[in-house]
Amino acid sequence: MPVLRSVFFLSDRTGITAETLGHSLLTQFDGIEWRKHYAAFLDNSAKIQDVVDRINTAAEQEGQPPLVFSTLLDPAVLVSIRQANCYLLDFFESCLGVLETALQQPPARVPGRTHILGQDASYFRRIAAIQYALNSDDGNNSKVLADADVILVGVSRSGKTPTCVYLALQYGVLAANYPFTPEDMEDRVRLPTLLQPLREKLFGLTLSASRLQMIRAERYPGSHYASFVECQRELQWQNELFQQFAIPAIDTTGISIEEISASIIDRMQLKRRLYGT
Amino acid sequence: MPVLRSVFFLSDRTGITAETLGHSLLTQFDGIEWRKHYAAFLDNSAKIQDVVDRINTAAEQEGQPPLVFSTLLDPAVLVSIRQANCYLLDFFESCLGVLETALQQPPARVPGRTHILGQDASYFRRIAAIQYALNSDDGNNSKVLADADVILVGVSRSGKTPTCVYLALQYGVLAANYPFTPEDMEDRVRLPTLLQPLREKLFGLTLSASRLQMIRAERYPGSHYASFVECQRELQWQNELFQQFAIPAIDTTGISIEEISASIIDRMQLKRRLYGT
Repeated sequence: MPVLRSVFFLSDRTGITAETLGHSLLTQFDGIEWRKHYAAFLDNSAKIQDVVDRINTAAEQEGQPPLVFSTLLDPAVLVSIRQANCYLLDFFESCLGVLETALQQPPARVPGRTHILGQDASYFRRIAAIQYALNSDDGNNSKVLADADVILVGVSRSGKTPTCVYLALQYGVLAANYPFTPEDMEDRVRLPTLLQPLREKLFGLTLSASRLQMIRAERYPGSHYASFVECQRELQWQNELFQQFAIPAIDTTGISIEEISASIIDRMQLKRRLYGT
Repeated sequence: MPVLRSVFFLSDRTGITAETLGHSLLTQFDGIEWRKHYAAFLDNSAKIQDVVDRINTAAEQEGQPPLVFSTLLDPAVLVSIRQANCYLLDFFESCLGVLETALQQPPARVPGRTHILGQDASYFRRIAAIQYALNSDDGNNSKVLADADVILVGVSRSGKTPTCVYLALQYGVLAANYPFTPEDMEDRVRLPTLLQPLREKLFGLTLSASRLQMIRAERYPGSHYASFVECQRELQWQNELFQQFAIPAIDTTGISIEEISASIIDRMQLKRRLYGT
């Protein structure tokens, strides 16, 4: 039976940074079942006292101090949390000292700067990138495709759309997608006409036939489209295409949208378009 | 003139965690222009040597050691990077010791667990949430809306779509959106019929009239739709609606998609639907 341990994610703002890094760290410890508690926007003493109480209650119930991951900029809040019975890991606090030395200036300690829209250009670029991903989804418009930083190509349900959306949100990159149609795959391996002038922008998503079958069967169980044979045939066609036209590709079987996206940025050497990235 | 300093973001995997936390920290120091260098998937010695060389070159050019933010799990890689002329902040290394003590077990030190699809249920839930956000975008389908965890309401260009997409990606939450139409706003303040049975799920997005005008003018400059008077009229209508029907709402003027989303999660007490969140 796994051990049960509480973990708290605290922040004076969104908590997204504390959650992201905290979760990364937790994955390195096995055999523990985590009871997760979230408290964002800790900006008044009632909320802070409530969290301290919840931490102490968890410590008592579990007979062990909970873990607390935080990104707190206000030293006074940090002092309050430290009084709770917990192992505190504040990601800001542990780094600001080193940075102060390195940069020879004290930190501003102003919360909310991470997600502030310091620059409107960046805000619009990000919104535009999301809109672009949605508008160019499964798009056949050569004018729209010409604007893309990268065009993801692959068979139906190979993960193009979520990856485009992530590339837009995280990096502000203009990512379009082109799904291979049954007509494209009808005969010999050839690059669809629409894509021929855009070869340099293409990036392929591939995956194992059994994985593709599973994904397609979620939606259309029992169909020819979701059969192993059909999945295999389409993947074979596209893998030959990728090879013949030297299209870089990634096998997405068992990896996340984040990993696929970061690989594309890395391998295509795409420029991040957001302020702060 | 701002000082120029290099900052490196290194990882054996995607680098997303190092980038997120690193950028948060940098926002706390003013008057510095950052030269950003990214190196993800540092998994062989050639890549590592290349980064070490780039760090040393930057140190020489700038006359100061660059900052290095990293999430490296392999101690051997960390040893190599430490030999470069830099201020190294490894977010994993500085925390794993505390966690080892707290949890009374050593970390696995296996890279890539953060974004691994440990659980297929979570993968499908996330993809389904993204698909849901796209399918229900500007949707008028009461059956689709009934499935939502939350329904964002607001006038055109108030930021509903990007927020829905972010809620899906980051939290796996099913977020639909309903844009108020000119017909909705024609006469007295009343809740559109479609939304009446769904009141508990509604969350409003509002913003300043001048901000809305600016956003609309980006796309349709000179139109009635983008005029200050029209923006003001629509916002006044919806603010009265929010008040009359006690619909929680957030003023999105000048805050980011992350902040809007985290506020919605917090205030609506929405359950995160992803493994690892």
